[in-house]
Amino acid sequence: MTKEIKHNTLEVAQQAFKHLTHGLATGDWNPLLDMLTDDFTFWFPVGPFHGLNVGKERVREFFQYVSETFIGGLTITSVERITSNETTVVFEFCDKGMLQGEPYKNRIAISLDVSGDKICAYREYFGSDGKSN
Amino acid sequence: MTKEIKHNTLEVAQQAFKHLTHGLATGDWNPLLDMLTDDFTFWFPVGPFHGLNVGKERVREFFQYVSETFIGGLTITSVERITSNETTVVFEFCDKGMLQGEPYKNRIAISLDVSGDKICAYREYFGSDGKSN
Repeated sequence: MTKEIKHNTLEVAQQAFKHLTHGLATGDWNPLLDMLTDDFTFWFPVGPFHGLNVGKERVREFFQYVSETFIGGLTITSVERITSNETTVVFEFCDKGMLQGEPYKNRIAISLDVSGDKICAYREYFGSDGKSN
Repeated sequence: MTKEIKHNTLEVAQQAFKHLTHGLATGDWNPLLDMLTDDFTFWFPVGPFHGLNVGKERVREFFQYVSETFIGGLTITSVERITSNETTVVFEFCDKGMLQGEPYKNRIAISLDVSGDKICAYREYFGSDGKSN
């Protein structure tokens, strides 16, 4: 059996991941925001954005919160795996930064749903405790 | 562009996921253990098995720990997404059970690496806090 995967899905998600990497590192989230649909939703595991978040204004607040929480930004240190289907792409990666003056490290999985040339939903999962990866 | 995905990878991972579902529900982990390679490794986000765990004896201890922690088992309530590449399959799902007398719910992503007709590695990620999904 072979399975068709639209070139577009992977390509769009990889572009978004590049913008996510840029946003995490620099605090400039505009390139990623431009790729999100107006009805964009996301799930986050912990903290003030725990659970389901709906709408573009909410994700703008979230990105600001991330950049205020991790002063100096977050660096993606390795991309471990990329898997996909027709509409969804999952990135497993490790990141690091500083959180309240202490070194922060985590293992992350993010799952991006692609719609046309945009991202319409996103789910984040934590693979470690923020102290090691 | 089309991309070839070995039928085998998805099929093997789905069989393992079926055995995982069974193990979580019943505490009978033998069908899943039989599908793991001798050099099997896994990453877990929290608790006594936090981080990298190596070897089949270790995973046997882990499964026992899961069944002792969630008395009555864990039920997978929905499978949200399945993504894959040539060697890895990621399942996003929701589960629920009882933890120390309180209702437990979580959103989970597990990533299975397939080698031949077995699973050689596994990474688990938490998408919520154990109290909601």
